[in-house]
Formats: sequence, C-alpha cells, structure tokens
Amino acid sequence: MIVRPSFLWQQQTDGDLKIKDWIRYDDDTPHATMLGIPFARASISASGASEFPNAFRRTWDSFTPYYVDEMIDFSPYRLCDIGDVLLHATDVTKSHAMMEEAMMYVIERYDKSLYTTIGGDHSITAPLVRALKRAHPTKTIGIIQLDTHFDLRDFSQGRTNGTPIRQLVEEDIVKGRHVVNIGPHGFYNAKSLIEAAQHYGVHIIPLKQMRSLGIKQTVAHAFSLLDVDLIYVTVDIDVLDIAYAPGVPAATPGGMRSNELFSLLFEIGQRDITAIDFVCIDPLRDVANMTVKAAAYAYFTFIAAQQKRDME
Amino acid sequence: MIVRPSFLWQQQTDGDLKIKDWIRYDDDTPHATMLGIPFARASISASGASEFPNAFRRTWDSFTPYYVDEMIDFSPYRLCDIGDVLLHATDVTKSHAMMEEAMMYVIERYDKSLYTTIGGDHSITAPLVRALKRAHPTKTIGIIQLDTHFDLRDFSQGRTNGTPIRQLVEEDIVKGRHVVNIGPHGFYNAKSLIEAAQHYGVHIIPLKQMRSLGIKQTVAHAFSLLDVDLIYVTVDIDVLDIAYAPGVPAATPGGMRSNELFSLLFEIGQRDITAIDFVCIDPLRDVANMTVKAAAYAYFTFIAAQQKRDME
Amino acid sequence: MIVRPSFLWQQQTDGDLKIKDWIRYDDDTPHATMLGIPFARASISASGASEFPNAFRRTWDSFTPYYVDEMIDFSPYRLCDIGDVLLHATDVTKSHAMMEEAMMYVIERYDKSLYTTIGGDHSITAPLVRALKRAHPTKTIGIIQLDTHFDLRDFSQGRTNGTPIRQLVEEDIVKGRHVVNIGPHGFYNAKSLIEAAQHYGVHIIPLKQMRSLGIKQTVAHAFSLLDVDLIYVTVDIDVLDIAYAPGVPAATPGGMRSNELFSLLFEIGQRDITAIDFVCIDPLRDVANMTVKAAAYAYFTFIAAQQKRDME
Amino acid sequence: MIVRPSFLWQQQTDGDLKIKDWIRYDDDTPHATMLGIPFARASISASGASEFPNAFRRTWDSFTPYYVDEMIDFSPYRLCDIGDVLLHATDVTKSHAMMEEAMMYVIERYDKSLYTTIGGDHSITAPLVRALKRAHPTKTIGIIQLDTHFDLRDFSQGRTNGTPIRQLVEEDIVKGRHVVNIGPHGFYNAKSLIEAAQHYGVHIIPLKQMRSLGIKQTVAHAFSLLDVDLIYVTVDIDVLDIAYAPGVPAATPGGMRSNELFSLLFEIGQRDITAIDFVCIDPLRDVANMTVKAAAYAYFTFIAAQQKRDME
Amino acid sequence: MIVRPSFLWQQQTDGDLKIKDWIRYDDDTPHATMLGIPFARASISASGASEFPNAFRRTWDSFTPYYVDEMIDFSPYRLCDIGDVLLHATDVTKSHAMMEEAMMYVIERYDKSLYTTIGGDHSITAPLVRALKRAHPTKTIGIIQLDTHFDLRDFSQGRTNGTPIRQLVEEDIVKGRHVVNIGPHGFYNAKSLIEAAQHYGVHIIPLKQMRSLGIKQTVAHAFSLLDVDLIYVTVDIDVLDIAYAPGVPAATPGGMRSNELFSLLFEIGQRDITAIDFVCIDPLRDVANMTVKAAAYAYFTFIAAQQKRDME
Amino acid sequence: MIVRPSFLWQQQTDGDLKIKDWIRYDDDTPHATMLGIPFARASISASGASEFPNAFRRTWDSFTPYYVDEMIDFSPYRLCDIGDVLLHATDVTKSHAMMEEAMMYVIERYDKSLYTTIGGDHSITAPLVRALKRAHPTKTIGIIQLDTHFDLRDFSQGRTNGTPIRQLVEEDIVKGRHVVNIGPHGFYNAKSLIEAAQHYGVHIIPLKQMRSLGIKQTVAHAFSLLDVDLIYVTVDIDVLDIAYAPGVPAATPGGMRSNELFSLLFEIGQRDITAIDFVCIDPLRDVANMTVKAAAYAYFTFIAAQQKRDME
Ligand SMILES: [Ca+2]
Ligand SMILES: [Ca+2]
Ligand SMILES: [Ca+2]
Ligand SMILES: [Ca+2]
Ligand SMILES: [Ca+2]
Ligand SMILES: [Ca+2]
Ligand SMILES: [Ca+2]
Ligand SMILES: [Ca+2]
Ligand SMILES: [Ca+2]
Ligand SMILES: [Ca+2]
Ligand SMILES: [Ca+2]
Ligand SMILES: [Ca+2]
Repeated sequence: MIVRPSFLWQQQTDGDLKIKDWIRYDDDTPHATMLGIPFARASISASGASEFPNAFRRTWDSFTPYYVDEMIDFSPYRLCDIGDVLLHATDVTKSHAMMEEAMMYVIERYDKSLYTTIGGDHSITAPLVRALKRAHPTKTIGIIQLDTHFDLRDFSQGRTNGTPIRQLVEEDIVKGRHVVNIGPHGFYNAKSLIEAAQHYGVHIIPLKQMRSLGIKQTVAHAFSLLDVDLIYVTVDIDVLDIAYAPGVPAATPGGMRSNELFSLLFEIGQRDITAIDFVCIDPLRDVANMTVKAAAYAYFTFIAAQQKRDME
Repeated sequence: MIVRPSFLWQQQTDGDLKIKDWIRYDDDTPHATMLGIPFARASISASGASEFPNAFRRTWDSFTPYYVDEMIDFSPYRLCDIGDVLLHATDVTKSHAMMEEAMMYVIERYDKSLYTTIGGDHSITAPLVRALKRAHPTKTIGIIQLDTHFDLRDFSQGRTNGTPIRQLVEEDIVKGRHVVNIGPHGFYNAKSLIEAAQHYGVHIIPLKQMRSLGIKQTVAHAFSLLDVDLIYVTVDIDVLDIAYAPGVPAATPGGMRSNELFSLLFEIGQRDITAIDFVCIDPLRDVANMTVKAAAYAYFTFIAAQQKRDME
Repeated sequence: MIVRPSFLWQQQTDGDLKIKDWIRYDDDTPHATMLGIPFARASISASGASEFPNAFRRTWDSFTPYYVDEMIDFSPYRLCDIGDVLLHATDVTKSHAMMEEAMMYVIERYDKSLYTTIGGDHSITAPLVRALKRAHPTKTIGIIQLDTHFDLRDFSQGRTNGTPIRQLVEEDIVKGRHVVNIGPHGFYNAKSLIEAAQHYGVHIIPLKQMRSLGIKQTVAHAFSLLDVDLIYVTVDIDVLDIAYAPGVPAATPGGMRSNELFSLLFEIGQRDITAIDFVCIDPLRDVANMTVKAAAYAYFTFIAAQQKRDME
Repeated sequence: MIVRPSFLWQQQTDGDLKIKDWIRYDDDTPHATMLGIPFARASISASGASEFPNAFRRTWDSFTPYYVDEMIDFSPYRLCDIGDVLLHATDVTKSHAMMEEAMMYVIERYDKSLYTTIGGDHSITAPLVRALKRAHPTKTIGIIQLDTHFDLRDFSQGRTNGTPIRQLVEEDIVKGRHVVNIGPHGFYNAKSLIEAAQHYGVHIIPLKQMRSLGIKQTVAHAFSLLDVDLIYVTVDIDVLDIAYAPGVPAATPGGMRSNELFSLLFEIGQRDITAIDFVCIDPLRDVANMTVKAAAYAYFTFIAAQQKRDME
Repeated sequence: MIVRPSFLWQQQTDGDLKIKDWIRYDDDTPHATMLGIPFARASISASGASEFPNAFRRTWDSFTPYYVDEMIDFSPYRLCDIGDVLLHATDVTKSHAMMEEAMMYVIERYDKSLYTTIGGDHSITAPLVRALKRAHPTKTIGIIQLDTHFDLRDFSQGRTNGTPIRQLVEEDIVKGRHVVNIGPHGFYNAKSLIEAAQHYGVHIIPLKQMRSLGIKQTVAHAFSLLDVDLIYVTVDIDVLDIAYAPGVPAATPGGMRSNELFSLLFEIGQRDITAIDFVCIDPLRDVANMTVKAAAYAYFTFIAAQQKRDME
Repeated sequence: MIVRPSFLWQQQTDGDLKIKDWIRYDDDTPHATMLGIPFARASISASGASEFPNAFRRTWDSFTPYYVDEMIDFSPYRLCDIGDVLLHATDVTKSHAMMEEAMMYVIERYDKSLYTTIGGDHSITAPLVRALKRAHPTKTIGIIQLDTHFDLRDFSQGRTNGTPIRQLVEEDIVKGRHVVNIGPHGFYNAKSLIEAAQHYGVHIIPLKQMRSLGIKQTVAHAFSLLDVDLIYVTVDIDVLDIAYAPGVPAATPGGMRSNELFSLLFEIGQRDITAIDFVCIDPLRDVANMTVKAAAYAYFTFIAAQQKRDME
C-alpha cells in the first residue's frame, strides 16, 4: 500500500547537516510524516506531477534544516519520509481509493503527527481529506487552499484536479463555508465556477485582496472564518506566477511571488494544522528547476514555522 | 486589405465559456474590434513579433471572460476579431501605408467601437495614430505609452520600432506634450534621446517614479497632463522585466513586474480610450510561453476595465 | 600578469553613445578600473563563472552611459577596461596568488581609482581584499557583502567560493564585525555557519529584515556598523531570486528581486567605496541571458551612483 | 462521439497550395480519413501526447502536398480531417470504449477509405484494431509496428501504452505471428518481454537487423511474414533516436534516424494498408518542435506513397 | 559602405594557433575575403540571421586552421575579415543595392581573391551574383545551391529569401540551366515551384538522389551540368536536418546530416570557385549553439579544400 | 578514500528487472566494478562533469540488463557500484593522487574484475592508468581512446583534461605507439598537437578514416597496432556529434553518431579489456538529457559485449 522511497540518501553524520542527512526513514513517533503520491493521471491538462515526489527528494542535498530569515534551527524536528502510495496504472478511481486507504493507515499509525503529502495532481486532496474525516468522523474540517483556481468543477465527468473541493463539499465532508481559497486571480475561473463558489459559500480571497490586506491579516482573517476542529492546508503551486513557477501544468502570469507564498506558509505554519499537501508541480516542464526548488522552499518554510510554534 | 484570421476556433455553446467561445468573428457593432498586424520587419533588432497575433489567438482556450480580482463578468462585452492586415513581403513603407488604410477602414466601418490592435513591432503605432488623426482631423490626440524606450529616434534612417513617437510628433499628428511615457528605466535610452524628449516636451515617468507615486496616482497624473480629445494607448511589452517577459526583442532586467502592468491597464481601462495597441511580443524567443500569456492577460485586464466602466 | 581583453569593441564616435563606445581601453587616470578574473575553479558546485568577464563585455552594445531612473548622465565618468588576470590552468593556490599580485599592481598603478572586478567565483574576493590590505596595511577594511550565503566555511579543505570571508577574518585582514552581509535567506546556510557568523561577529541582515527596514535604512544601518577606513563591496549575484537570476551555480528561490539589488547598489554607490566585485554569474546556465544582463545592470547602477556622488 | 477539430484553418484558393488549404473538412468519400485522439492518460510515463492532434494540425501551414524526393504531387488525394474522439476526463476504460465506438463509426461511414489516426498514447491502438476486427470479423489482421518497445506488458495492472499488442494477441484479435515489430534496440525491453514475444510468436526485427537487411528488404520480409487480409500499421515515434525526436515520453539514444523512418513508411505506404496510427508524440517536451515536425513528415510520406500506389 | 567588424579579436602569436589568431584584418592580397552581411529583413519567416556574422566571428576561439580529417594545415591560407556591409534600417531595396555596391567594391579591390560572404538571409545572393556579373559581364556564371528550397518564388511581392534564384534567372544574369540545387527534400516546395524549376531548366538533385549517387559523384555530376566560366556557391544552412541545425528560420526534418554537407563542401572546395555565401543561420533560435558551429565547420571545410587545391 | 554512492536505489525482486535492481552494492567478486569520480576541476573549459556519476546512476530505472540488438541477457553479469572517490575541494594535484590511490585499492581489492570508471573530466585517465601501471609494473599497457581531441597538450601549465595522454607517454607509463585514438575530426586540434602525435607515435584514426574502413575493421586494425599486455579504453563522449551529445564542455558538429560509438564499443567489448572510463559528460548543459542517456547506453553496450564474450 505504501512502498519505501525508490531511492535512499546516504546519510552523513559529520560535516554540515543537510536535509538529506536530517530526514528520517524510520521513526515511529515523528513530528511529521511525509508521504509521496506520484500520481498525475487525473490532471485535466497533461501533467508530470507524478515525478514530483522524487524530484522533491532530490533537492535535499541543497537545503539545510536551518531557516535564516527567522533564525530557526529545526534540526530537532523529526520528519519521516514514509515512502510513496502504491497506485494502479490506469484506474483513477482505484488509485484514489488506494490513497484514501494509505492516508487512513498513516493517520492511525502516526496518530500524533502532522501529515504532509507530496503530490501529485490536485485530485489527491479529495481522498486525503476523506480519510481524515473517516478517522475523525465527529470533527469538523476546514480547508485553507492556496490556488489560482477554485477546483469546484462538476465531477460528473470525472474526479480530476479541477474538482477536489466540489467533491468534498458535495459529499458533506467539508462545508463550503469551511473552505478559504487565497490567491485566485485573472481569467482562469469561468463564471459558472464563481457561481458555484457563491452557491457553496466557499470563501475566495483574490490575490489582489490579499495584497491590500497584507499577509498576516489575510491569514488571521482566513482562520477567523474557520470555526472548525481540524485544519487541512492544500498548496497548489500554480498559485505562483509563471515567472516564479513555470513548472506547473497551467502556469499563469499575474500570480503570487514566491516570497508571498513563503510568508503565507510561515504564518499558517505557526498555527495548529492537521495536514498539508503540495500539488501540481510538474518537474518535466520546469525551467532551471526553479519550480521544484520553490515548492521545496515552501515546504520547509512551513516546517520551520511548525518548529517555531513547538518552541513557543 | 484585411483578411480573416488564418484559423477560426470551433466555438462551443455548452460548458464553461472560454474566450475562444466568446470572441466574435462577425459583429457589425462590437464594443471593440481586434485587428492583427503580423509585421516585424521594421524592428531594429531581429524580431518574431509578426507571430504574435496568432500566438495571442491560440491562448484563447485558457482564458475566460471573467476577471476574478475584481469579480467582473465581461461576457456581455462584444469583442470582434476582424482579422489581420494584409502586408507587403518586403516594402516597409508600403506595409505601413496598408496598415494606415486598414485602420481608416476600421474606424469608418466600426465608428462606435474601441479599436484594439495586436502587433507587430512598435513601428505600427505611427500609421495607426496617423489614421486616427485623418479620421478625426480636428481632434487632439494624446498618447499613453508604456515602454522601456522613448521611441524618439531620428527616422531619417528608416521608420523603425525606435521611431514611432518621433514620427507622430514631427508630423504634428500628436504634440510632444500630449505624450506620456510610463516605465522607462535603466540604461536603454541614449542621452540624445533624453534630449529629444526634452526638446519635444514628451513626458517621461520613469518606473522608479511610478513606484514612488503609486499606480493609481501615476495614471491620474498622466491623464491630468493630457488635455486632449482622444486617447491612444500603446503598450510595448518590453516595459516588463525580463524575468516576466523574456519574449521580446530587447528584454531588460529592471522593468515592471507583470502585476504592475496589469494594474496600470486596469486603471487606464476605466477611462475613455479610443484605441490601444500591444506591440513587440516575440513568441519565437519566449520561455514557457510566459510573455505571450502576460500580454494576453494585460489585454483582457484592459477589456475587463472597459466593461466595469460601461457598467458604471 | 594582466592581459588585454580577448576582444576589443570597434568604437564609434558618431551615433548614440553606447557603453561599448564609452569604455576606455587605455587611460592612466580613470575614475575606475575594470579588471576581469575569468576563474571558476574554486567553486564548490560546477560553475561557468569564468565565462562572465567576456559575457559582461558582450552586453556593452545594449547599454548606454545614461541612467534614466535618476536622469544621470555618466558619460563624463572614465571607466577603463584594463583586461583580465592571467591564471594557472589547474593550480588554485597559484591562481589566487596571481590575482593578489594583479590587484596589487592595479592599486599601485591606478592609485586614485575605484577598483572594480568582474569574477569569477567568490573565492576571488579573498586575494583581492588581501591585496588591498597589503597596499594599505594601516587602514581598516570593511566589507559589504550581498549574498545568499555567509561564505564562512572552514577552508581547511580548500579555499573555495564558500570560504572567502572566513579566510579574511581568520587571517585578520578584516575583522568579523567589519563585515555586513545583506540578503541571506532560506535554508542555504547550515547551523554551523550561523554559529561561525556569531563567533566572528559578522553582521547578518537577512533579506526579510532588509525588506522590513527598507533599502535606504538598511544601507545606512550597514554603514553605521562599519567604523572603518576603506569599504570593499562584494556582490554575489546568487543573492537574487532564481526567477531573476537562474544563471548562477546555486540559484535559489526566495531571493532578492533585481530592482532591490539595483536600489541597494544605488544607495551604496553614493558612498565612498574603495573597491567592488561581482561574482558567481554563470553564463552557461543562464536563461535568456537574463542573469548576465542583470549583473551588467547592477554594475552600471553602481557606476551611475558614483557619478552622482562625484557631481555633488 | 466525434467532435469537429477545435480550430479550422482559413483555406486559400490562390497562392501556393499548402496542406492547410488542401485538407478537407467535409468529404463523404475521401481517400483517407484523419481522426484525432487527444488522449495520454494511459501512458506509463507522464505524457503530453494528448496535445499532438492539434500540434499536428498546426504544422499544416508549413507543408505542401508535393513530395520532392520522388516528385509526387498528391494534391489529387482527398484527406478529410473528421475531428477528434470525445473522451472521458478520467475513466480510461470508458475512453478506450469511446475510441472503439468512434472507430466503428468511421469504418462504417467511410467504408472505402484508409483510416489514419493521430494519437495520443500507444494504448489507443488496441481499441482501434478491436473495432477493425468487429467490422471485419472474418478477416485476419496483421500489424506492422514501428517501435522501440514490444508493448507486450501484462495488462492485469491496466491497459497502458505498454500493453496494446499483448491485449490484441490475448484477446485473439490478432495472432502473435501476425505482428512484426521493426526497430527495437538497446536496453528498453526487459527479458520477460523478450520471452513474451517468443511465447506469442511476435516477430521482432531489431534496428541493427533492419540496417543490415536494408529498408526495402526489411519491408518485403515483414510483409512476407504476414499472410493476412488486412494490414494495420502503428508508428510509435519513440522508435526514433532522441537526437531526432526528443519529444516523446521515453526518448532513447540508439534509435532510428528520421530518414530511415521516412523510407520505411514510403515502402510500406506503397502497399495495401487498411489503417495506420501515429502515437506517443509529446509536444510539451519537444525541442525546437522537431519531433512534431518529424511525425508530420512521416505522415505525409506515407500519404505520398499511397498516392504513388494509386497512380500505378 | 563596408565597416570594420564590430569587434576585433586580440591576437596571440604564442600558444596554439586558433582561427582568431590566424584571421587577418588587413591584407591587400588575401587568398580570400570574408564579408559579413548582417541582414535578415527580407526573410519570409521571422529571422535573426542578421546576428550570424558576429556569431560566426565569436566561434573563432574554438577552431584551428588545421583540418584533421584530411591532415590539411591551412595556416598558410590568408583569409581577411574585411568587415560588414553597412545597410539601411528598413529599406530592403536600398539595402540590396548597398550589398551589390559593396560586392562590386570587393571584387575590384581584391581581384585575385575568393569572395566569401556570411549572411544574412538568402535574399543577399541575388545582389551578390548581380555584382559578380557586372564585374564580369562577358562571363557565364553557374550556381551550386545547397538548399531545402528552390528559391524560385515569384518576386512581384518582394525580393525575399524565397526569390534569389528566380531573380537571377529572370534578369538573365544566370541561366536556369546553370543552376544546380542539391538537397531539396520533403514537402517544402509547392507544386508551382516545381513547375517553375522545370520551366527555367534549373537542375534539382533531391537529397534522396544525392544519397543514392554518392557525394563525390553528385558533385562531379553537378559540375558536369555547368558549362560556365565562373562558379558561385550558395549554402543555405536550412539544407541540414533540424536535428543538426535547429537554428534556421524554417528548420525541417529529413534534411542532410552535417557530415554530408561537409563532404559536399570538401568536394566542391577542391574546384575553381569564384565566390561562396552561407545564409539563413539564425543564432537566436539555435539550440546549444549547434547550428552556428555547424555553419562555421562547413565554412572552414571549404577553406581547407581550397588550401588542398592550392597545394596540388 | 572511496565513499558509498550518495544515494542507493531501492531494489525490487519482483516485476521487470531494471539496471537499478540488478546493480550490486556489495559484491566481493564482481565481474566488474564501477567507480565514480565526481571531478571536473581540471577541465580547460567550464565543466559540470562532476555531476555525471550521479546522473548516470539516476538513469538506471530506465535501462534493463537485456540488449535487444544482439539478444544478450547480461543479467548474470555482476556489476558492483563501489561508490565514489573522495576528493579535495580545490587541490587538483591532491585529487589526482587520491584517484590514483583509490584505483590502486580497487585493483588490489577486486583483482579479477574489469575496472570501469565514470568521470569526471578527462584528466582522470592519467592517474587511473598510472595506478594500473603501478599494480602491474612489468606489463605493457595499450590505450584505445575515443575522442575528438588528442589530449596531447603540454602539461607544464597544469594537468588538465587536455593532457592525460601526454602525461602517460612522457612519464613512460604508456608508449606513444601503444595509443590509438579513434574519432578525431574537424578543426579542434592545433597543428602543434598533430606534431606531438607524430613525435610520440600516437596512432590517430580520424573519423573519416574509420568510416571508410568500417567499424569492425577499424577495431581490428586498432588492436593489431597494440602489441601489449593490458588494454585500457577511454571514452571521451565529446567524440559524439553535438546533435547527439550537446552535453559536453566542447561539443562539436562533425562527430560520431551515437550508433557508431555503440558499435565501436560492442566490438571493443568482445575483447580482453582491463579497464575502461567514460569522461567529459556534463549533465548541466545537456539537452533533453540525451547525452547522459547516450553515455549510459554506451556503457551498457560495452557490458553486454563483455557478457557475450564471457558466454563464448
Ligand atoms: Ca488546484
Ligand atoms: Ca490550480
Ligand atoms: Ca517601443
Ligand atoms: Ca521598447
Ligand atoms: Ca558567496
Ligand atoms: Ca552565494
Ligand atoms: Ca509503443
Ligand atoms: Ca515505444
Ligand atoms: Ca534558400
Ligand atoms: Ca532554404
Ligand atoms: Ca579528451
Ligand atoms: Ca575531447
């Protein structure tokens, strides 16, 4: 169901500590688990996001567990790479079920951990949150979504990366008003989707509004909207501007600068978060590996924030 | 004189409305016309800007007529793609004359419309404005230019993309003081051109000044300088930073971020504008299609602003 | 020891003045010298920074000696390209010694000039500053470093581009407290290096802090920390974000925007500066030549600031 | 079931005849139909082959219906672009069924035509041949496969682009001995697949053998092995060397040169062929559009050969 | 009329002799002149061929005047870079006239030399041959053309890179039967151009025919067709396959391999040749600089052959 | 001295056997050892060849131990990845000594094995052969070199990648007449190097000669020249044409096609070979990873040939 990572870093105990040396492959009680989902078959546009879990792992020799901006040493934080979900070669429905079961297993096996997931296309969020709900049926779940798109498409034609939020709301796993999407902009959501957002009560904070509010205030506002028990964060890297993140299936101009995303995640990461995923990074169409690196930077900014929170 | 677009989108009436479905190919009284000028022969540096009209059209399946940032539905706006100007294969002077005649025809044929033109290199602006003056000989014309360069070169050596403003001023079609150029920066205008700007009274608002003023204030200031009857806007995409727009013949660092350009156009677009052009986008040297997409985004931001203005 | 540039621009006296026409190849009393160091052999990661001096020279036909942002004409400023240091093909120690001797020669030969150096990897800074100290043994030297990294690695394993600051401090050429590094961010300095910075008293101003202070205030603060006789500025272009500068050996997201770097250099350049270097630009892995152009833009912004200062 | 092409070329009757002008959109009795299958969801490795039908159509302004090598004017040949198969967004099984039904429809509707199909990934071949068998249940079908891979993987884990030949043989639609694969080479077929080829009696002509036989002799030999009623040709562009065709999901060195592929298709095309497909071209990872162009060249070489055969 | 090269190599007398050291800038009686024509304004498709003369010059530090394949030391050969033709910024007709005058001047000034010209787009061939005819009005001129295209387009719509052969034949400067084009292939010449070739009696040797004849025999055959006084060779680099030469405006698959072009030029170069040009190399869309390098390699292969001929 | 590979593949025992599953990490008596030398500091031109050992390892999930061209199953062959040589960060002389010691250790530790080495730049060959001589002082060593260059430069200025053969010959480790270089072509060896080859008696078989002889005959001829006890093969991937191998520091047109290199290695590999290295592959400037893949293909072709030889 979950297989070991396809390659393991040789870890060094002397010399400067890199993420590759600090990551754990076997830890029963980590602060956080990292689960890979090498799956891009439900992406509307052609996507190599299935390559991202390993592309992410390959960045680990150029990152350290120390965050200079805030002078946070997160080497005490225990992050365990538990491997990748095993998937079906063509059956999307079955693959989604396998992710859901894998997530159930992780939640039970590591019940005190933060659950981080490395996608994969955005369709993975639906089974992951569904598993969280199954594990905590009485708890209400809120979603902080960072995305250029609403992902509220009708899924009668398939559970694609354009539908995860709609699925969760229609299946009553998450209430529409418990979803806050930060970052939409431009001309990438048809009017019918705007109407869907209004219909379900999903909160949309366009990028322009985020900028006029400021990042801290935006995050505070988003959390104030979420009167829930558990928070799930989903980061679609296509929220970034194409100049910063050309390596996504639907890259757009007019998006966030990467430092804005990092600031958002540093704010969000200082809160109680149950799970987070990073999706829609396509290493095959990246330029100078910049999107892969930005996603890794975003991930570790969030981890640094969690460490700061634990210290306080 | 004007030929139909070289390809036509198959338009769908069901499903989410995309720009490709919304664009009109036949409309006698559109809010705006869109005319392509596939011409790059007068560019000083080698340019594939002649490829842009079709590259622009090809983006239309990834844009919708809904602008999320300001929640503007511009699907009621009628934009008609009237095709491309037919040009001579090598005779620049004749080609410029053909553009001028085509523009004359468009102004007469669609006399209530906004005229939008998709270049092409910047040399096209001179014949387009000349046509506007011929159609409205008693009206004064002001130009808002967004550009890294002044385009005030002496044209004794040819009417290139470095000369359109100088042509218009010397021919007394537009007064120098009725030109406001927003965005110049860096080391890309020789001293002789600065002196030309001073001589003609052209207003230069360097990017640094724009940033210290703020975008709304910059636009208000620019319009306050223009006591004219008709406003022509010309957008040279090389005003953008090379990180956002590598696909121009003379890309430079230190330029505008694309969101600044979009904000400028959203402000400008809420005013009375007679015509606008977008020039110097070279799809052949683009990276990840980002410049083409940024120019399309800029274009539709302007259209959304026009819709907002019409609604108010 | 120093050889003429490997190619010389044909200089024009008519037409618009470009940098290529304005640069001097022979001037005994220039305002500034420009020395190339085509050396990348001490870079930890594979680097083509040895190609940068000539790549920089090749940009000179697209820059002019006029800075539009501040309307500064620096054509009166005399900048002399004195050529490149001759180096050994494999012996890093010998090559470093050759740079030191070349710098000694330049300081003596052009004793009234500003010394600008075009690297090369960051290891070159140590011999350059060492030469400056030898020439001015009684003077205290301060360093303004713009860098993502501290360059404080232990050099027992070689004097690489990760060690120049450590070398200078350990050799007591510069005091740790006389070094101010502006721009570090993210996850690119191991904890041991943070501890080294603290140990030596090197001042670190992370990018996030620079942004909250503002650029003018940051520069003022940096200079207030430096109670020294001579200021040496070292600009590692990897301080820029990978979206603006993919052409460096260790490009990272989360770095400076190029306009921030230009503003820093415009502030710094208005002060008394003895020498400056630009390092770690790798033209071989650049995208759309944007990093090379950004480094050239940064260089001339500094020169424009020097001209402004001379005028005042 | 089949939708019109998403864009239509504006066709010119004067000037030089290009493929775009010659292609037919409505013809009841064409010599050949062209059907697009924008489907890449069953590709084992990430693939943008779904983009190829339109990328192919976009090349039509740079090809003419005249083949210089053999001085063949194929403008009399009537080729009709009948559009694309409509597919499900995620359900691979349903999409495969939709292709099969579409192919059934085409065979019935255009019963005298050659059927050409533009993929898409290689999984499409199985439903297409299945349809052919359903339409001609008493006829034996032979397959000429040009491919680096055998496509004989076990499909218990999904009907991917690695399985079409295995599917057809196991379902007894085509006999193993009625399959000839020309072009395999190198290290890209595991031993278990070599054993499968032997087990099913599939004929493998490695590239090295093809080169020692010569192309005409190889084709003659291949046809001599096929004592069948109908011939189906399937061209996996990954049979080409990566230097000629980087734009495929699994590009390899050591493959065919493009002129060898063209010669093969010119030989094959002079025979009685019932249907042909071109698969696994991924425009998203192409370099200089060379793979897309090579596939188009291959396609029209085959058509030219058909014209030659019709003339004789 | 002719200006010095825009940059000059610093030449070394010690160390290994490179082309940059061996090239002459001032020689009254060179074996050959090299004239640059930085002109691409008459190219039908967008072209950066105007950048090639300098791109060619920049390769000179990686080539030596020794040809290993045939052990030919051509360092005794005197090749003089006489600079570039000065051109008009937009007037194609005037620019063509300026080339013609420049060529007249070169022929008179260096009357014993071989004339080599570095384009530029293919339109330059017409004025160059016209000058040759003017200088030698009683001599018959033959053309060996290496090209994918016939360049026999009707020039009523402009004297583009698609028309030079037609111009020369219609103006009776060269007879149609004195033109041999080696290398056309594929689908890149419309039927009307095939008819034009037949009408004018231009000899077409398609690539396929060249390969079946062999290169030596092809060259012998071509020369046997040319019963003329002077031979002009024109090399359109788009005769190469796109895998070898992506950096041309109309790159095609199915073309020559570069070693075939080199062999052709080595054969041709051993004959009496009056002039040669190399056209349609676009450095701006090259990949890994491979087209620029291939064109330089082709050029020096021809020079090596001339040296061999001189020695014999 | 030798460190484990920086990452280890997770190996699978079920499913299709890939190279990643078949490679051994611990085997005392392998048929062959594989040693990585991540070293590019002695390359004359900037090189990322230090990245190749790991880039090579990363290809192992797309290759199988079965060679289709000759139907050779080399899964019984035992290849052991023994890791990488530990090197000094800047001291080239020390690093070369470390390689020599590592090679000594390998020869002693695995005395029955073939020694394969993955570079690294070409300077590594000198210490590797020196170690071989030290281990077998009474044996004569012959070198088969596949290279565009002679590597006979004078090393008084450093032991670069341009000098290994000269070093070995001058140190009398290998006699000049015991070196056969297959593949030089074009303009990439100065006359002084041709003279050096003649002086030392090194055999040069230019590519053109290889092609006229045929590959089998060339190899037979090369071995007939080598009346030695041990054969060392060194493969500089820059022997390939730039169209096939853009990812080398000095890529040239006019080189070998990759299938020619593979055929050479298949012939050579069926002989008694003591050691082989593959050098000068620079993954950082590769296009579509084609050079890395070609080098891996070359490597496994050689291994397949060794297996064939062992079987016979
Ligand atoms: Ca999403
Ligand atoms: Ca999204
Ligand atoms: Ca302009
Ligand atoms: Ca401009
Ligand atoms: Ca540094
Ligand atoms: Ca740094
Ligand atoms: Ca296949
Ligand atoms: Ca295949
Ligand atoms: Ca031509
Ligand atoms: Ca041509
Ligand atoms: Ca070598
Ligand atoms: Ca070599």
